Amino acid sequence: MAHTVAEIAAALGTTWEGDGDLAITRASEPATAGPDALALAMKPDYADGLAQGRARAAVLWPGADWRALGLEAAILAPRPRMALAGITRLMDPWHPMAPGVHPSAVIDPSATLAEDVSVGPFVVIGAHASIGAGSRIQAHASIGDGATLGPDCLIREGARVCHHVRLGARVILHPGAVIGSDGFSYVTPETSGVEEIRRSLGQRSVTPPQHWERIHSLGSVTLGDDVEVGANSTIDRGTIRDTTVGAGTRIDNLVMLGHNVQVGRDCLLCSQVGIAGSTRVGDRVVLAGQVGVNDNIFIGDDVIAAGATKIYSNAPAGRVLMGAPAMKMEAHLEAYKALRRLPRLLRRLEAADAARQKPVSNPADSD
Amino acid sequence: MAHTVAEIAAALGTTWEGDGDLAITRASEPATAGPDALALAMKPDYADGLAQGRARAAVLWPGADWRALGLEAAILAPRPRMALAGITRLMDPWHPMAPGVHPSAVIDPSATLAEDVSVGPFVVIGAHASIGAGSRIQAHASIGDGATLGPDCLIREGARVCHHVRLGARVILHPGAVIGSDGFSYVTPETSGVEEIRRSLGQRSVTPPQHWERIHSLGSVTLGDDVEVGANSTIDRGTIRDTTVGAGTRIDNLVMLGHNVQVGRDCLLCSQVGIAGSTRVGDRVVLAGQVGVNDNIFIGDDVIAAGATKIYSNAPAGRVLMGAPAMKMEAHLEAYKALRRLPRLLRRLEAADAARQKPVSNPADSD
Amino acid sequence: MAHTVAEIAAALGTTWEGDGDLAITRASEPATAGPDALALAMKPDYADGLAQGRARAAVLWPGADWRALGLEAAILAPRPRMALAGITRLMDPWHPMAPGVHPSAVIDPSATLAEDVSVGPFVVIGAHASIGAGSRIQAHASIGDGATLGPDCLIREGARVCHHVRLGARVILHPGAVIGSDGFSYVTPETSGVEEIRRSLGQRSVTPPQHWERIHSLGSVTLGDDVEVGANSTIDRGTIRDTTVGAGTRIDNLVMLGHNVQVGRDCLLCSQVGIAGSTRVGDRVVLAGQVGVNDNIFIGDDVIAAGATKIYSNAPAGRVLMGAPAMKMEAHLEAYKALRRLPRLLRRLEAADAARQKPVSNPADSD
Repeated sequence: MAHTVAEIAAALGTTWEGDGDLAITRASEPATAGPDALALAMKPDYADGLAQGRARAAVLWPGADWRALGLEAAILAPRPRMALAGITRLMDPWHPMAPGVHPSAVIDPSATLAEDVSVGPFVVIGAHASIGAGSRIQAHASIGDGATLGPDCLIREGARVCHHVRLGARVILHPGAVIGSDGFSYVTPETSGVEEIRRSLGQRSVTPPQHWERIHSLGSVTLGDDVEVGANSTIDRGTIRDTTVGAGTRIDNLVMLGHNVQVGRDCLLCSQVGIAGSTRVGDRVVLAGQVGVNDNIFIGDDVIAAGATKIYSNAPAGRVLMGAPAMKMEAHLEAYKALRRLPRLLRRLEAADAARQKPVSNPADSD
Repeated sequence: MAHTVAEIAAALGTTWEGDGDLAITRASEPATAGPDALALAMKPDYADGLAQGRARAAVLWPGADWRALGLEAAILAPRPRMALAGITRLMDPWHPMAPGVHPSAVIDPSATLAEDVSVGPFVVIGAHASIGAGSRIQAHASIGDGATLGPDCLIREGARVCHHVRLGARVILHPGAVIGSDGFSYVTPETSGVEEIRRSLGQRSVTPPQHWERIHSLGSVTLGDDVEVGANSTIDRGTIRDTTVGAGTRIDNLVMLGHNVQVGRDCLLCSQVGIAGSTRVGDRVVLAGQVGVNDNIFIGDDVIAAGATKIYSNAPAGRVLMGAPAMKMEAHLEAYKALRRLPRLLRRLEAADAARQKPVSNPADSD
Repeated sequence: MAHTVAEIAAALGTTWEGDGDLAITRASEPATAGPDALALAMKPDYADGLAQGRARAAVLWPGADWRALGLEAAILAPRPRMALAGITRLMDPWHPMAPGVHPSAVIDPSATLAEDVSVGPFVVIGAHASIGAGSRIQAHASIGDGATLGPDCLIREGARVCHHVRLGARVILHPGAVIGSDGFSYVTPETSGVEEIRRSLGQRSVTPPQHWERIHSLGSVTLGDDVEVGANSTIDRGTIRDTTVGAGTRIDNLVMLGHNVQVGRDCLLCSQVGIAGSTRVGDRVVLAGQVGVNDNIFIGDDVIAAGATKIYSNAPAGRVLMGAPAMKMEAHLEAYKALRRLPRLLRRLEAADAARQKPVSNPADSD
C-alpha cells in the first residue's frame, strides 16, 4: 500500500518539506533503502547511510539539510521514536484475516459472536463465551467456557483464553499466550519446611515427610482495555478473586504472573519477568527483562527496575531498583564498585597484618 | 452447585456452628461476599471485611465469636490454607468435558483408549499410544506415538505429550506444557571453548572454529503419579535413559527440566525454575521462582532455595539456600548486609589513609 | 532397526574389535543393558556397570580390555561425546511422518509445497507461503502468510512460523516455538521515566502520567541453515530490518530473542536465556542457562557466559563471563570469595576499633 510523503507527515502530526507527492511503499534503514522507501534517519549519524542507499525521501532530525543529503523530500521528526510509532502503525497491515468463521472452527451453540468477528481455522470457542465486535481469533486459539472478549481484540495463533477469563477492548494476545491457567498454590497438612524457615530465618529442626494438597483456583483473570500479552507468557487465575492487569499495560514474551497478582495501568513488563502470587504492582511500573518479584509484596507506582533485578520486599512509589537482592540504583552501583575493589583491599589488609605481626607480637591486633 | 454449611465442614473434616443447613453457592472474600457466599475470614484481620460484605456464613479462626460478627453460621478452621484447599476443591467444577471422542479428533487406529476417556476437538493421538481410564484430553493437545497415560490424567489445551513419554495416574499438564522435547546436547569434533575453560577456570589459549554435532535423545520422559506441570513448561527427554519426575511433584509455569534430569517425590518447582541436564534432585525439594540449577550436580532431599537462587554446586540434604551464587541462607544474609556496609568502609579506610599519609611518611603502611 | 557392531563403528569412523557381526538394536547404560544393546561405557568408571548388565558389546575407552570385561565385541571411542552423537543419530528414528498432506490440513491455494513435503493433521499454511523439499510440518503447527522454509526443515507440534519469516535449510523448530512474534517496543509521547533515569543514573524529578504508543514490527525473522529452536522459545520480528540468527546456531527451550537482535553462527544459547532488543551477538558464542543480555549492546565472537550471568555492557571477543553484573570469570571468582570473607573482616575491624578506642584516644586512627 503506497502513501505520499505528505500523507505520512499528516498521520504523524509533523511537517514535511520538498516533494510531498512522492509515493512511499515501505520504510527502510538508510543504507538499504530503495527509491520507493522512506529512509529512517532521525539522527545525524545516519547521514552516511543515506549516501549509500537510494532513498528519495527520509525522516530526518529537525534542522537537517535534506537537499544537501541528496533527497527530494523530508519529514522532520522532533521525537524519533514517536515518529517510528506512527510510521510503523501506518505501514503494518496488522494481521489481516478473512471475515467470518472458518468452517473448521468448533463453536459452542451457546457462544455469542458480535458483528464483524473473524474466526480462523481450528479455533475452539466454548459454551456461553462472548466475543466482542470486530475481534479476530487466529488459527488454533481456544476460548474457554464463559470467557468474554471486548471489541476489537486480536487473539493470535494458539493463544489460550481459559474458562471465564475476561478481556477488555483491543486486547492483544500473542501466539501461545495462556491466560487463566490454574494458580500454583499448595499446602501441607502439617507445617512444611518452607513455613518453618520463613519463621526461623533459615534454621531447621526436623524435615518431616510432606505431601502437597492442591488449592484450586475459583477466581479467574481480568485484563483491562488495550492490554497486550506476549508470546508464550502465562497469567494464572486467582484463588478466590481474579488476577487483574490494568488498562494499557504491555507484557512481553515468556512473562509469568502468578495467582491473585494485581498489576496496575500502563505498566511495561519485559520478557521473562516473573511476579509471584498475590503481589500488587502499581501504575506505570517498568520491569526490565528477567526481573523477579517476590510473592505477597507491593510495588508502588512508577517503580522502575533494571534488567534481572530481584525484588524481595516492598518498593515505595518512584523507586529505581537494581541488583539481586534489589537495592536503590545508586546504592547498588556503589556496592558493586566496592565489591570490585574488595579483593585488593583484602590483600592489602593481609599484607599490613603480616608486616605488623612479623617484627613484634601485638595481642590487641589479633583476630 | 450448592452445598450446605454442614456438608462443607464435613468435607473439610472440621466443625461448624449455627445454621448448618444454610446453602452456599460460592466462596468469596469477606468484603465482597453476597448472602449466598461463604466468606473466607480465617484471621481476625478479616473481621472488618465481614462487616462490609453481606455474608451469612464464614470460615473463621478458632475461637471466633461468629454471632458478634453478625453471621448465622461458621466453620472453624485451625489451619487456614488446608481449609482453603478443601473448600476450593469442593467448589471447583474442575474442567468438565463432554464424554467420548470429539468427531474432529485424529486418533491412530492402533492407539488404545480405556473406558471413560474424553477427547476434545482437534486432538491428535499417535500410533500405539495408550490412554488410561477416565483421562481427559482437551482441545488441540497432542499425544505422540507410543506415549502412555495412566488413569484420570488431565491434559489441557495445546499441551504436548511427545512420543513414548510415560505419564502416571492423575497427571495434570496445563496448557502449552511440552513433555518430551529433544534434549539440548551437542559436541564439537575438536575441544570446544567451553571444555577448555572448564579445565582452565577461565584461561583461554585459542578459540578455534567450531560447529556443533547433535547428540540425539534416545530416552524419553517418565512422570510419576499426581505430577502436575504448569503452562508452557518444558521437560526434555533423556539421552539414553529417561528424564524422570517422582510422584506428587508439582511444577509451575515456564519451568525447564533438561535432559536426564531426575527429580524426586513431592517437590515444588516454582515458575521459571531451570534445571540443567543430568542433575539429580532429591525428595521434598522446594525451589522458588527463577531458581537456576547447574548441570550434573546433586540437590539433596528437603533442600529449600529462595527465589532467584542460582545453585552451581551440590547441595546437601536439608540445606536452605539463597543468593547468586547460592550460599547457606544465614551466610547470604550476612554477606548481603556486609556488602551494603562496604562502600562506607572503603570511604573510611581511604580517609584514614589520607590522614596517615599526609603528616608523615610511613613505609610500613604503604600499599 | 538392527545394526551390526561393524556398521556402527563404520558410521562413527572408528575401530572395532571382536565379533563385528553382532546385531545391536538399541543403546543402553551399562548396568541396564540387555544382550541386544550396545552398552555405552566410554570411561573406566563404567566397568562395574558392565558387570551388572548383560551387554555383549560396548563402546569403550581406548585401550580397554574388552575380553576381560566379559564382552564379545567392542567399539573404541577416543572422544566419547562424539561417539554418542554418532550412535544416537544412527539409532534415532527422528520423527517419522507419513508422506503427503493430511486431509485435515488447511493450506492456502497460493502456497507452494516442494516435493516430498509432509504435512500433519490440523496444520495451517498461509497465502504465498513456500515449503522447501523434504520439509515436515507436524500437527497443529502454523506457517504464516508469505513465510518461506528451506529444504528438509522439521516443524514440530504446535510451532508457529509467523508471516514472512524466512527459515534456511534443515531448520528444526521444537514444539511451541514461536518465530516472528511482534517486537516489544513502545514510546511515550512525553519523556518517560525510563528515559529520565538512563540520563540521570537513577535521579528522578517528576513522574508524569504516561501511556505507551506501540512501535509496530515491519521487519521479520531470518534463521540460517541448521538453526534449531527449542520448545516454547520465542523470537520477535525486527522493527524495520529482520531479526537474524546465523547458520548452525542452536537455541534451547524457553529462550527469548528480542526485536532486531542479530545472533551469529554456531552459537549455543541455553535454556531461559534472554537477549533484549537490538543487541548483536558474534559467532560461536555460548550463553549458559538463564543468562540475560541487555538491549543495544555487542557480544563479541567466542564469548562464553556461565549460567545466570547478567550482561549489561559490551563484551569483547573471547571474554569468559560470570556473575550478575557480569565480570571476567577470574574477577568474579575473586570478588565472590572476598564477599564471603567480608562479614568476618567487618567484625574484626569493629573489634579493633573497640579495642583502640577504649584504652587510649589516638586521634590519628579516628574515622
